[in-house]
Amino acid sequence: MIESAYETYDVAILGAGFEGGLLGTILARQGAKVLLIESGTHPRFAVGESTVRHVFRMLKIIGERYDVPEIIEKFSSADSIHKHVTTMCGEKRNFGFVYHREGQDQNASECTQLVIPPFREGYEAHLYRQDIDSFLTYTAINHGATVHYRTSIADIDIQDDGCTLTSSQGDVFKSRYIVDGSGYRSVLAMKFRLREEPSRCSTFSRSLFTHMLNVTPYDATVTPRGAHGMPQPWYSGTCHHIFDGGWLWVIPFNNREGSTNPLVSVGLQLDPRRWPKPRDVTPEQEFHHFLERFPSMAAQFEKARAVRDWVSTERIQFSSKRTVGDRYCLMAHASGFIDPLFSRGLPNACELINALAVRLLRAFKDDDFSPERFDYIERMQQINLDYNDRLVNCAYISFKSFELWNAFFRVWVLGVGLGDLRLTSAHRRFTATHDESVLPDAEEPMGLFFAHHTGYKKLFEEACDKVEAFEAGTVSAHDAARHIFELMAAADYAAPANHLADPSKRYVDQGETVTVLKTVAWLLTSAPPDIKKMGGGILSDLNPRRLMSRKVTPEPSAI
Amino acid sequence: MIESAYETYDVAILGAGFEGGLLGTILARQGAKVLLIESGTHPRFAVGESTVRHVFRMLKIIGERYDVPEIIEKFSSADSIHKHVTTMCGEKRNFGFVYHREGQDQNASECTQLVIPPFREGYEAHLYRQDIDSFLTYTAINHGATVHYRTSIADIDIQDDGCTLTSSQGDVFKSRYIVDGSGYRSVLAMKFRLREEPSRCSTFSRSLFTHMLNVTPYDATVTPRGAHGMPQPWYSGTCHHIFDGGWLWVIPFNNREGSTNPLVSVGLQLDPRRWPKPRDVTPEQEFHHFLERFPSMAAQFEKARAVRDWVSTERIQFSSKRTVGDRYCLMAHASGFIDPLFSRGLPNACELINALAVRLLRAFKDDDFSPERFDYIERMQQINLDYNDRLVNCAYISFKSFELWNAFFRVWVLGVGLGDLRLTSAHRRFTATHDESVLPDAEEPMGLFFAHHTGYKKLFEEACDKVEAFEAGTVSAHDAARHIFELMAAADYAAPANHLADPSKRYVDQGETVTVLKTVAWLLTSAPPDIKKMGGGILSDLNPRRLMSRKVTPEPSAI
Repeated sequence: MIESAYETYDVAILGAGFEGGLLGTILARQGAKVLLIESGTHPRFAVGESTVRHVFRMLKIIGERYDVPEIIEKFSSADSIHKHVTTMCGEKRNFGFVYHREGQDQNASECTQLVIPPFREGYEAHLYRQDIDSFLTYTAINHGATVHYRTSIADIDIQDDGCTLTSSQGDVFKSRYIVDGSGYRSVLAMKFRLREEPSRCSTFSRSLFTHMLNVTPYDATVTPRGAHGMPQPWYSGTCHHIFDGGWLWVIPFNNREGSTNPLVSVGLQLDPRRWPKPRDVTPEQEFHHFLERFPSMAAQFEKARAVRDWVSTERIQFSSKRTVGDRYCLMAHASGFIDPLFSRGLPNACELINALAVRLLRAFKDDDFSPERFDYIERMQQINLDYNDRLVNCAYISFKSFELWNAFFRVWVLGVGLGDLRLTSAHRRFTATHDESVLPDAEEPMGLFFAHHTGYKKLFEEACDKVEAFEAGTVSAHDAARHIFELMAAADYAAPANHLADPSKRYVDQGETVTVLKTVAWLLTSAPPDIKKMGGGILSDLNPRRLMSRKVTPEPSAI
Repeated sequence: MIESAYETYDVAILGAGFEGGLLGTILARQGAKVLLIESGTHPRFAVGESTVRHVFRMLKIIGERYDVPEIIEKFSSADSIHKHVTTMCGEKRNFGFVYHREGQDQNASECTQLVIPPFREGYEAHLYRQDIDSFLTYTAINHGATVHYRTSIADIDIQDDGCTLTSSQGDVFKSRYIVDGSGYRSVLAMKFRLREEPSRCSTFSRSLFTHMLNVTPYDATVTPRGAHGMPQPWYSGTCHHIFDGGWLWVIPFNNREGSTNPLVSVGLQLDPRRWPKPRDVTPEQEFHHFLERFPSMAAQFEKARAVRDWVSTERIQFSSKRTVGDRYCLMAHASGFIDPLFSRGLPNACELINALAVRLLRAFKDDDFSPERFDYIERMQQINLDYNDRLVNCAYISFKSFELWNAFFRVWVLGVGLGDLRLTSAHRRFTATHDESVLPDAEEPMGLFFAHHTGYKKLFEEACDKVEAFEAGTVSAHDAARHIFELMAAADYAAPANHLADPSKRYVDQGETVTVLKTVAWLLTSAPPDIKKMGGGILSDLNPRRLMSRKVTPEPSAI
């Protein structure tokens, strides 16, 4: 084989999905020679639909930092996507959690809700991934990336001077570096035996999911209407039906004004130790058998019909011993995965891509791809996985008791809030100065994005200890919950207006005018100095019109 | 095998694309038990993107006749699709034909254009098929159809009392009737050896196609701008670059206000006798080699990049000996195909589905599926194929000489106009009376929808005779063209304002106020009685605002 016969790319990225498309866009825009290798083709179905504030905030940072106008203009909020990319996405104004007990009607007082503050750039989104993933890939092509579809890499050879990839059809590609964005079936992970067997993850869940038509908004099935007393309809956001041993996601694409998509994403997560996978029924039958046990959940799906095949998985957790090696690294979804709970997939992916792109660009320039230069990526991924695992596993444990979930919910809310505050502050400073040292990847990786606050980090760990002690049988759910509420009461860095220490306040309404104004006033005056510092300029991020109007979500469009 | 173990569907439809989805929607809405069997899944790429007025007119008739609100509200114009289905479609305000000679800059005086009249319901569309086909399938599901994806039928057994379909995975399905909407690779056609080998078609072409980014509007490459003197920019419609031995389609999805799709569909049709398929280059390389021979076409693609794999076919014409048999029929794209020229695929499909659905519903009711009841379908498909073949083949022949194309163009324009007039008139009467006897499928099938006028039928045949005589070398292009212009001059049923007999008037502008008003006045006063009869009520179909404003197509959005 004569090497000069092959063009050598700076980077070969495996997988042209969200991760590959976004990284490919950034690197190609920055002038790198990018090759995307995709085993399938667009359009194609994918899950990973629900964003958190961290996603669009990170995308804005990426857009500015790497000078990608398409990301800034078209892909930085549900609004910009709707206007410029696709009208198939839904809107996410809240995270809702409705607690169910087997064989019983749902008790309207057992639920929690986090209302997302109305920032200037619009609401969070339910991403219709087929359109988003092709948008990102086509944007990468627009900036010069080369894509090979329907190409599966059968072998990879990494030498001191570069990488050779051979497809199952015998095509040969050369690159200086390989990034694997192909997910669980990562070729690199297989080749270099990177997977931990068994996985070190504590979370234990399997998944059934599809897209459905005619899903009734849960709100319409509750009698009397509004009995839950939550600030927003469940249908305005991502609804999580939680129960002992699992949870069910309901992610509407049809809950946004002007949406042309009648579908709703529906996914059931089950701990197979509590809910063993049946071997003699179809996934659809399993879903319906499951609903028979939960009458209030079932009502939402009485008229619902799947428009595509149900997917039923085995256990979905996996982890890797290493995620970085000589001239390669695995991206977030190829490195490990916990569970869709709390929608951690997309923020982790964006955080990783932001940190990876700058390191790759430096490596291309210096022609130095030694793994030490990517050590940050390795540590970040491992720590993110471990924190996420603990968070999600504790949430699953807490699903055994509404009282405990009601407490642990606050732990997550507080972390999300602190993380948002921190990233928003960093973004504001970066926009003003273009100083990369204010960005998260200039600091030591510290796991979940909200674990940088030492007080919160301690609280998180103590709360998890209690939940795990409950699982071990050494403390009751009631006592564990009470302990968590005490931790909340002592957290002077938590905005008082959110009432996190009050068990009777089961929601945090960051979309409500008085609450938001109180929180802003606290941030600017009496918050601890480290928190106060991050609050400067926050008023300019809020959208006063949206804050005051609280427009009701439109009725879901019928197909 | 115990038959009672299987649910028996009224109809099993093979293929959940445009045809299967639309027929499935109608039949399910009318209460039939519909099974759709699809070898792939949604979303998926498809071509067949450009509509003609006949498509939406027929869809309106179908929506009213079969009481399908989704078709009436969401799928009856580019406007309703944009608002309710997807913002990924383009708009088609004209059919443009630009004549090229190998090795030469394009001569601005060698082109023709048919501007589509601005009817009340909006313009024609460039359908982004992945969204349209899933919309139709999901609508069928919404009305109760069952879909099996990723299911290939390996065997079909048709008995006196019903049909048994067995998938390659061994699944068994039972139905009373089978409709094959799976296209060229029709299982039924293979099983019953229905294909004509060789095909009886005269047209001879192969195809290369893809979707591209950054296609420059052809208008922007012409110096000076507007040199062609055509009423509309090429970019406002479907642009056909025509040349000896083939043509190239340019179908923008980004030419409509509010479109979120940056792509343009590009397809090259070549007569392999003139342009043999090379065996040593990729389709993309062939496309670029081709462009090297046509400098003016090449300018449009200087910055263009394919976002998906090029598809390169062998000869695309095929035909069937029979399309209807015991308990089965083939739909339009499984029966035969000529060429995408003149966008005959979708109107043929809609015409067939309108005629087939009513016959199927009657057969379900009477429990009588004898092939005689579907004889209309058989004759219609065969005649449509033959007329379309002659039309397209003569167009390809005429591409050898711009003078001849300039004449033959009029033959097509006149036929399209008469066909529209006839169908619009039938629709108007049907809306008023709901009398099915006014609809096309109540009459004898007479081939291309525009061949019902005896005068025009004779003109069409004489014109084709002349073109074919030119091909045979017995008449010159000049004399053939002159003869066709003479036929036009004698056609008293052709609206004088369209100047079809004047070779110097190279366009028909049915979007221009004075022309339209003259044509309407002629229709209502001095047209021959049979034409006049169809013109009644035509004013109510026009959109006066659009007629007067002639809004310029927006600049194509960049990705």
